[in-house]
Amino acid sequence: MSAVGIDAIEIWTGKLELDLPNTFAPAKNEDPEKYTKGLGLQTSSFPDTYEDIVTMGANAAKRLMDRKDLMPDDIGRIDVATESAFDNSKPVSTYIAGCLERVHDGDFHHANKGERKFACVSGTQSIDDAYNWIRAGRHRGRSALVIATDTALYARGDPGEATQGAGAVAMLISEDPSLVELSNEQGYGSADETDFLKPNQQFPSVDGKRSMQVYLARMREAVEDFESVAWDMQPEDFAYIPFHTPFPGMVRKAGLLGYRHTIRDTEVEDELAEQIGRQPREAEYDDWEAYEEAIRAYMDQLKDTDEYLDWYDRVIEPTLDISRRVGNWYTGSVHVARASALKHALETDRSLAGEKLLIGSYGSGAQAEIHAETVQDGWREEIEALSIDEQLERRYDISYEEYEKVHDAHNHDMDREVEEFTQPEGEFVHAGWGRMNERKYEYVE
Amino acid sequence: MSAVGIDAIEIWTGKLELDLPNTFAPAKNEDPEKYTKGLGLQTSSFPDTYEDIVTMGANAAKRLMDRKDLMPDDIGRIDVATESAFDNSKPVSTYIAGCLERVHDGDFHHANKGERKFACVSGTQSIDDAYNWIRAGRHRGRSALVIATDTALYARGDPGEATQGAGAVAMLISEDPSLVELSNEQGYGSADETDFLKPNQQFPSVDGKRSMQVYLARMREAVEDFESVAWDMQPEDFAYIPFHTPFPGMVRKAGLLGYRHTIRDTEVEDELAEQIGRQPREAEYDDWEAYEEAIRAYMDQLKDTDEYLDWYDRVIEPTLDISRRVGNWYTGSVHVARASALKHALETDRSLAGEKLLIGSYGSGAQAEIHAETVQDGWREEIEALSIDEQLERRYDISYEEYEKVHDAHNHDMDREVEEFTQPEGEFVHAGWGRMNERKYEYVE
Repeated sequence: MSAVGIDAIEIWTGKLELDLPNTFAPAKNEDPEKYTKGLGLQTSSFPDTYEDIVTMGANAAKRLMDRKDLMPDDIGRIDVATESAFDNSKPVSTYIAGCLERVHDGDFHHANKGERKFACVSGTQSIDDAYNWIRAGRHRGRSALVIATDTALYARGDPGEATQGAGAVAMLISEDPSLVELSNEQGYGSADETDFLKPNQQFPSVDGKRSMQVYLARMREAVEDFESVAWDMQPEDFAYIPFHTPFPGMVRKAGLLGYRHTIRDTEVEDELAEQIGRQPREAEYDDWEAYEEAIRAYMDQLKDTDEYLDWYDRVIEPTLDISRRVGNWYTGSVHVARASALKHALETDRSLAGEKLLIGSYGSGAQAEIHAETVQDGWREEIEALSIDEQLERRYDISYEEYEKVHDAHNHDMDREVEEFTQPEGEFVHAGWGRMNERKYEYVE
Repeated sequence: MSAVGIDAIEIWTGKLELDLPNTFAPAKNEDPEKYTKGLGLQTSSFPDTYEDIVTMGANAAKRLMDRKDLMPDDIGRIDVATESAFDNSKPVSTYIAGCLERVHDGDFHHANKGERKFACVSGTQSIDDAYNWIRAGRHRGRSALVIATDTALYARGDPGEATQGAGAVAMLISEDPSLVELSNEQGYGSADETDFLKPNQQFPSVDGKRSMQVYLARMREAVEDFESVAWDMQPEDFAYIPFHTPFPGMVRKAGLLGYRHTIRDTEVEDELAEQIGRQPREAEYDDWEAYEEAIRAYMDQLKDTDEYLDWYDRVIEPTLDISRRVGNWYTGSVHVARASALKHALETDRSLAGEKLLIGSYGSGAQAEIHAETVQDGWREEIEALSIDEQLERRYDISYEEYEKVHDAHNHDMDREVEEFTQPEGEFVHAGWGRMNERKYEYVE
């Protein structure tokens, strides 16, 4: 059975930048460290007025097709993952395919197009569907294009406003991939939760505290489910562990949970016992609450140990670099975290082929998915090709007044004309509406 | 390689009924035959005030789980296909799983839940994903639950108002299925079209004429794509051909196209040549328009031949029986057409095991999918278990004034309290809203 996984990725950021400590915090009369230290964010990406989920997704996909020298006939499947859709019937993938057909010879008429929705986890679900399609032998030698694209805006004044972001990640899923092979094993933790939802709303209803609890509870279930079909994981099994990153502060909590779980019944736990004791065992407690309380106390100590801090710095911290500069991209976030980790390996000249990643995806509502990936020989060339640093550098730094205008421009309930802040060049743009109220797109040379 | 396909189905209709020739036509001052003969519809199903896509989907799924004696642990995947979603982030499958957990022991915490959107084709796409998941060996012996659920309402006064409907189809996808095995071969015809869409709207923008053209064009492409990987189809290869059925009149056109395509270069074409000549060949014409014109003239004659009419009566007409009584169920429609065909075989005491169906799915926006199914030995018992006739019989027949109230009650932009028309019993109901504006559900004994 040949390997199936991610052959190539491309990232497209929204072209505007909001500086959180220097622009957002002063306007809100808040301590800049609330953003930089509490949430772990420096800047957010925003879409310019001519950008939306279609343009960002199509621009990432075009870049990927150009770089990999792909023709439409090489693609048998196009799935878009998003929770920012503007059409309740026609999928975003058809709009994106229409864009790509403007600049490529041939067409995608025999590609299966689709759209998946499950908060931030549907990008990973779409990769999994593509993997299964290849494994089922239905792909006829072709690859799948998976595009995670979101404009993650919150209502003005909502606490989530600090964690906004916008961008797209395009991924090519193929046999014999250059970047990572996916494990056949998967773990799921999933329950009917109301932590974050958008009932007939563009902007979300969020219970922030509940959302953090649910993220950790579902992730724990998914890890246990993964171990039931894979193996008992140890902290050093993985070079990096990219988690879904709504903001880096959330991942600090997930990382600690993961470390605590994987050191249990290992030498690491024994070695740490001298400093902080052994982990509480459920059987030692009369009730669940007392046990949970003891676990919390153990983790409070664990998080300050050198052993944990060293592991965190090596395995988790490098996954957060891009996220700190772009904010939350919803469906794209965990894929940005993977790219960030691989970029770190490249920049530190690390030998990574054959090593493993553990991917922790999460979507509110709620579901976590865990799978492993094995880095492939071609990873270095793929990651060298990423242009995300230059893209981030080129973003237009908006003032608070400009931020207010941009937010209005993307609010579906407002009809506000706002001048663009940047000049489009060599990219797809949103260019107005058609007779059926559909969005129209153009390619600007 | 063991067979993978549909093991069981259950259908749940909206509990109200609108009589098109006797209630709707008089109120609109129109000829009843516009509905019965033109569109081919007798009655539409509507949801009562306490019904929505979650209750209908959960009720169909509960019935299926009860009948097949399934526990939550038997299910590894729950995908919902809909174009009537009311939440832009949290998928309908989580709401449905939450309902089912109220009445079943155990939970679905390790099942992958999802939601697919692509107009009316995403039910078939979800079946295909489930099939691929099993073929990829990721299912751990479990089955997938696929639920196609829609409330297909149009704006009052829209021409589509005559083709409304509401209901859900739940399907269990398994190894060694009792009902039908799916072909590994699939054909796709897909393009970026604006025939029907819902840009930030509950009710669709429709170009009816364009939608019919696109349906036929994409279906033709899908048939050719299917033949490129399967075989050159002949009209007698299939016991039945269930098509997506927005209204039965549409399927008359699709059936004629299919017959014309499959008799080409066969004895049937030769035999018909004496009456109506042979089919035009593209090479014989200077331009595409002249060729298309000649094809249309040939089809005008073909549709009145005894050979075609006999084939249509045997292979297509039986797929339309339920549709005539329920209207358009969007994602569920093609699956209702399959059920209608199998029910016809049961009622006419036909021996069907081992025979083939050709399934023609379609979603506006636009994409057609073609695949074949082989009827399995257990089909008769599965179809005998359907209760759709009794459900249809029990619907409450609404007056035109009541129709107006029900339509308002389901209009997201109106806040109208309407008394229910029927008493819920042994089913899930929508029971209000929660603190985050989420819909809440209850099971009524």
